[in-house]
Amino acid sequence: MLATTIHAPGDIRLEEVPDPHVLLPTDAVVRVSAACVCGSDLWRYRGVVPVNRPGRIGHEFVGVVTDVGDEVGTVTPGDFVIAPFSYSCGTCVNCRNGVQTSCVRGGFWAGRDRDDLPVDGGQGEQVRVPLADGTLVRTPEVPDDALLPGLLALTDVMGTGHHAAVRGGVRPGSVVAVVGDGAVGLCAVLAARRLGAERIVIFSRHPDRQDIARGFGVDDVITTRGDEGVEELQTLLDAPGADVVLEAVGNQDSMEQAVAAARPGGSVGYVGVPNGITELPMRAMFNRNVGLAGGVAPVRAYLEELLPEVLDGRLSPGAVFDRTVPLSDVGEAYAAMDRRQAVKVMLRP
Amino acid sequence: MLATTIHAPGDIRLEEVPDPHVLLPTDAVVRVSAACVCGSDLWRYRGVVPVNRPGRIGHEFVGVVTDVGDEVGTVTPGDFVIAPFSYSCGTCVNCRNGVQTSCVRGGFWAGRDRDDLPVDGGQGEQVRVPLADGTLVRTPEVPDDALLPGLLALTDVMGTGHHAAVRGGVRPGSVVAVVGDGAVGLCAVLAARRLGAERIVIFSRHPDRQDIARGFGVDDVITTRGDEGVEELQTLLDAPGADVVLEAVGNQDSMEQAVAAARPGGSVGYVGVPNGITELPMRAMFNRNVGLAGGVAPVRAYLEELLPEVLDGRLSPGAVFDRTVPLSDVGEAYAAMDRRQAVKVMLRP
Repeated sequence: MLATTIHAPGDIRLEEVPDPHVLLPTDAVVRVSAACVCGSDLWRYRGVVPVNRPGRIGHEFVGVVTDVGDEVGTVTPGDFVIAPFSYSCGTCVNCRNGVQTSCVRGGFWAGRDRDDLPVDGGQGEQVRVPLADGTLVRTPEVPDDALLPGLLALTDVMGTGHHAAVRGGVRPGSVVAVVGDGAVGLCAVLAARRLGAERIVIFSRHPDRQDIARGFGVDDVITTRGDEGVEELQTLLDAPGADVVLEAVGNQDSMEQAVAAARPGGSVGYVGVPNGITELPMRAMFNRNVGLAGGVAPVRAYLEELLPEVLDGRLSPGAVFDRTVPLSDVGEAYAAMDRRQAVKVMLRP
Repeated sequence: MLATTIHAPGDIRLEEVPDPHVLLPTDAVVRVSAACVCGSDLWRYRGVVPVNRPGRIGHEFVGVVTDVGDEVGTVTPGDFVIAPFSYSCGTCVNCRNGVQTSCVRGGFWAGRDRDDLPVDGGQGEQVRVPLADGTLVRTPEVPDDALLPGLLALTDVMGTGHHAAVRGGVRPGSVVAVVGDGAVGLCAVLAARRLGAERIVIFSRHPDRQDIARGFGVDDVITTRGDEGVEELQTLLDAPGADVVLEAVGNQDSMEQAVAAARPGGSVGYVGVPNGITELPMRAMFNRNVGLAGGVAPVRAYLEELLPEVLDGRLSPGAVFDRTVPLSDVGEAYAAMDRRQAVKVMLRP
């Protein structure tokens, strides 16, 4: 089969690799219907995170089950399934606590699983899925292509934006500010609106992303950032900050801005993978009672709740995909996202 | 009147100072019935925090109102009152949000108030109380001396321990670990029990403090700390950590221990004033979804809820005071706490 590999910063290839098979009785094999490129994939593409050796890449995909191991009970060949960006057993203490990203048996795509078997990446034609029962969630029927973007968003960005909103404590009436206008930040807008936020402000300097944000229910856009952006927020809200700030970038500046944008007693829900954050503004957090909660999102925990809403059209995160290309053009997909010519690119094998 | 002053590390004096008077129409004057020494006072006493110039000290007191300004409406001379460790207007946005420590008009004892008038410290015979209506909470009648320790605990340590538990998210059934066995950590035990924690473990190496902790409802004591202590906790709980960790120390080691002691998806409620924390364990927090919330406790926000329970005996935090001395022996009070010969010393003017 064909699968995407990264060999060095900027060097993305579509290569012939061995077809996946059921190797363990808890495995399933999924033929990928749609995959995509994540902002975090760009870190290796840009050389911000080193590429130590050539390897598979991609962790977001939906598709159809083609084979299952003897111990798999919840999905069967022919089922359309959503695969969260990590696989998990569903039964260990951390899975039961709803933190499937800390599953004691699980792991991440394009890595290695518990028997030191390589695990496929998501940007390929097929994927061997370990711990299929704990990982995959099936839809009642194979969905129309029109639903693919929304379903694909559930594999990562929508669940991650939702996690920021949940852990940040968004509730009916909350005033929310969003730092980061990538796909996760945009989905955080949608999640905050869904949880009943009264007013949502996004920091964004990109007109195309502002448009998506408005479509997702944002009330105000602030185009400045840092201290200037925080002052503009306070003036706009006529308040010492937002009740909840959703942080979806993960660098030092964005984290400082997020903490400063929260009102005393407020909180920051953060899901931007920390990258180069050398120091949290601890004193400001303590003196102003600003809490910080979040982390690598256990999107599997939210699938049962969010999937029905995507299927019946109440929740439509698919607009974050502003371009679709065939898998054969995966290099172009990376380049478009790297140059900010696309928010998020869907790949069709 | 007599009031405590600090001149240099280790140099605590009781000195004659001017009697306080109503200077602003929102002021009250309180004759102190009982005051005490705080763990945070010891930082200057020990030279950990510099003593830039001689000045008043102390921020915990209860007493009887002797005079009020024309605009004071909620307390009158003769009322017994609890004074939180910060004063606050009660009407600004932050006070209305329950974060009185961020009051836009308020401040801290032994500092200066909005007109650059000196504010008395709590360890004296009398105190001028700015913003009396927003700050002071009266009891229905002047309480018996036996209630003084419990009421005095409401000025800081009990409200602070409660804040850790509230912000950490302790709820019925929570498994809680407490880092820090000073008066705040001990009160955090009491607060966690009151909020319905199912099991409470404290890290403590001091038998006298362990005894108080057991009296407050702790189930288990761990005498090791750091990684060893965390492993012991995990073994004891047969779990990857506590649901909620209450941090009541505020240094690098205690914060790292607190984050490590929380299970994936758990949280740390922190109220230890940060001192020498150079770096939060950000990666561990993110990868394990451990939240961090807390800060300088708005104890005023909790007085209406906690005071009736202290008055009727349901809540008895007074046991944190294991020594009482006359105000004239304030130097001895500091020395006893510095040498860990006392958990917390009550001063009687």
